[in-house]
Amino acid sequence: MRADPIKVLFAARPERWQEYEAPLRTALAEVGIHAEIGPDVGPPETVDYIVFAPNGPVSDFAPYTRTKAVLSLWAGVEDIVGNASLTMPLARMVDGGLTQGMVEWVCGHVLRHHLGMDRQIRKMGGWDEIHHIPPLASDRPVTVLGMGALGAACALALRGLGFPVTGWSRHEKALDGVMCVHGAAGLATALERAEILVLLLPLTDETENLLSGPALARLPHGAVVINPGRGPLIEDAALLEALNSGQVSHATLDVFRVEPLPAAHPFWAHDGVTITPHIASETRPDTAARVIVENIQRGETGAPFLHLVDRSAGY
Amino acid sequence: MRADPIKVLFAARPERWQEYEAPLRTALAEVGIHAEIGPDVGPPETVDYIVFAPNGPVSDFAPYTRTKAVLSLWAGVEDIVGNASLTMPLARMVDGGLTQGMVEWVCGHVLRHHLGMDRQIRKMGGWDEIHHIPPLASDRPVTVLGMGALGAACALALRGLGFPVTGWSRHEKALDGVMCVHGAAGLATALERAEILVLLLPLTDETENLLSGPALARLPHGAVVINPGRGPLIEDAALLEALNSGQVSHATLDVFRVEPLPAAHPFWAHDGVTITPHIASETRPDTAARVIVENIQRGETGAPFLHLVDRSAGY
Repeated sequence: MRADPIKVLFAARPERWQEYEAPLRTALAEVGIHAEIGPDVGPPETVDYIVFAPNGPVSDFAPYTRTKAVLSLWAGVEDIVGNASLTMPLARMVDGGLTQGMVEWVCGHVLRHHLGMDRQIRKMGGWDEIHHIPPLASDRPVTVLGMGALGAACALALRGLGFPVTGWSRHEKALDGVMCVHGAAGLATALERAEILVLLLPLTDETENLLSGPALARLPHGAVVINPGRGPLIEDAALLEALNSGQVSHATLDVFRVEPLPAAHPFWAHDGVTITPHIASETRPDTAARVIVENIQRGETGAPFLHLVDRSAGY
Repeated sequence: MRADPIKVLFAARPERWQEYEAPLRTALAEVGIHAEIGPDVGPPETVDYIVFAPNGPVSDFAPYTRTKAVLSLWAGVEDIVGNASLTMPLARMVDGGLTQGMVEWVCGHVLRHHLGMDRQIRKMGGWDEIHHIPPLASDRPVTVLGMGALGAACALALRGLGFPVTGWSRHEKALDGVMCVHGAAGLATALERAEILVLLLPLTDETENLLSGPALARLPHGAVVINPGRGPLIEDAALLEALNSGQVSHATLDVFRVEPLPAAHPFWAHDGVTITPHIASETRPDTAARVIVENIQRGETGAPFLHLVDRSAGY
């Protein structure tokens, strides 16, 4: 490695820098990389790496002529992958902490609906209200759409809780104990088995509006939809129609086409919709900083970058 | 086996017979036992087996002079174990369906508190309310008191979700991936580690009021107590005091000293208490009927009964 410091531009919102500064400096020191890092490290043409979030200050990558890689803090890269000025390698965030957090959120919210937790919980003397005994998890088929790092981890955890799990992906995959299906024909099967449906697909031209009226009609009547993936996977009007008809009994949504979800959006007022504010899982600075620094180290030693985005596939 | 039918008295509430009649007849037919079974099978001195629930018609076992075993439909036997007229073997219900249902309820309610689900869920435009990022499960120690069939299964499932789990039992036990402690010294350790505490102990003279003021004071400040075991494990007044001081941040209670929980009980009105009406898990007639019939078959062939209660230990 060279003696003069490498320059790492931190191109995300200022409050992120407050969270990430110490973990990044620690992770760099751990591997012995001498770096100048921060929101301002000098002229673009001197920057070696960009740590990136789409809501930060950089949208034109053309001036960054010597930058070896753009390292995303986000797992989803749909806001940057189509950027024509981005000609250098782009790496997604694959953070073990983010994956584990997602597993916990998904298991918790699947169990909430499986158990009928809201109906189980009694208020003010309501002991004798009718109690519905849920089936065992082994009689409650769950489908996960998307078998990437997040979807596969959630499918395995749900399997571990006893649910029969179907996992759908674009291309063929195999996962122990999970019924894996793929492609257009597999999607029909995956939807038909989904008493509870979990969306963990990347957002691409092919997945946008995947959950439209015809797809929702394939679900078992009264199915539950859980979306911690990306808002535009769902056609909002079709979901509202399915909720109103009872085809979908409940939707728990963490992500939306527009965030924050506008106050006038009908999801807010709908009894069949649970809203969480895009918190299903968060990149954890401690673990994410190590992922970023590992890629910087790889760039400096000529090793291949990890978690590179396939720009043609879009994820 | 003999040719004339054996007589099996079903001594539980009439609505239970409606649920159990078909599964019991099916299970008996499966193993080729010729039995007369029902709520009325003739004089007590002709009854071979009693299928029993404590809220049913039988409380004096003295007239049942030829009865080979009393087969409980319930996992908890504290209402019968001290009955002096019960001189024949007593078997508890150990039902795979009940165990799995308990695992699902416990995992769901532990995750509800771990994630801060109630605070995560936003109502009517409240997107920007302060969001608290929960620690990962790996940084949230959970303790299970009681390492019987239910406690051990819950401990393993919580471990599978990533929680560091401590399990406490009266006598030494070992469980893969679970920190097992036992006896009085072990109890202190188990309580000190319990950011979330799950009670799955049998009710005995030794466990009654186990969770008193001094025990609650050993928990980490702000701990959560989850009780799907037995109501009298907890000293109600001490729990209310701990809730009011913040020592315990929340209690989710499925069982109570008096059930239904009386309308005047302060638990109903307390914001820090979640009440479910003794539904954490239920014996499932299909699987439970097979457990009952297996013991009848053992009795008829002279094999040892399964799940016998140790009358001196009380469980």
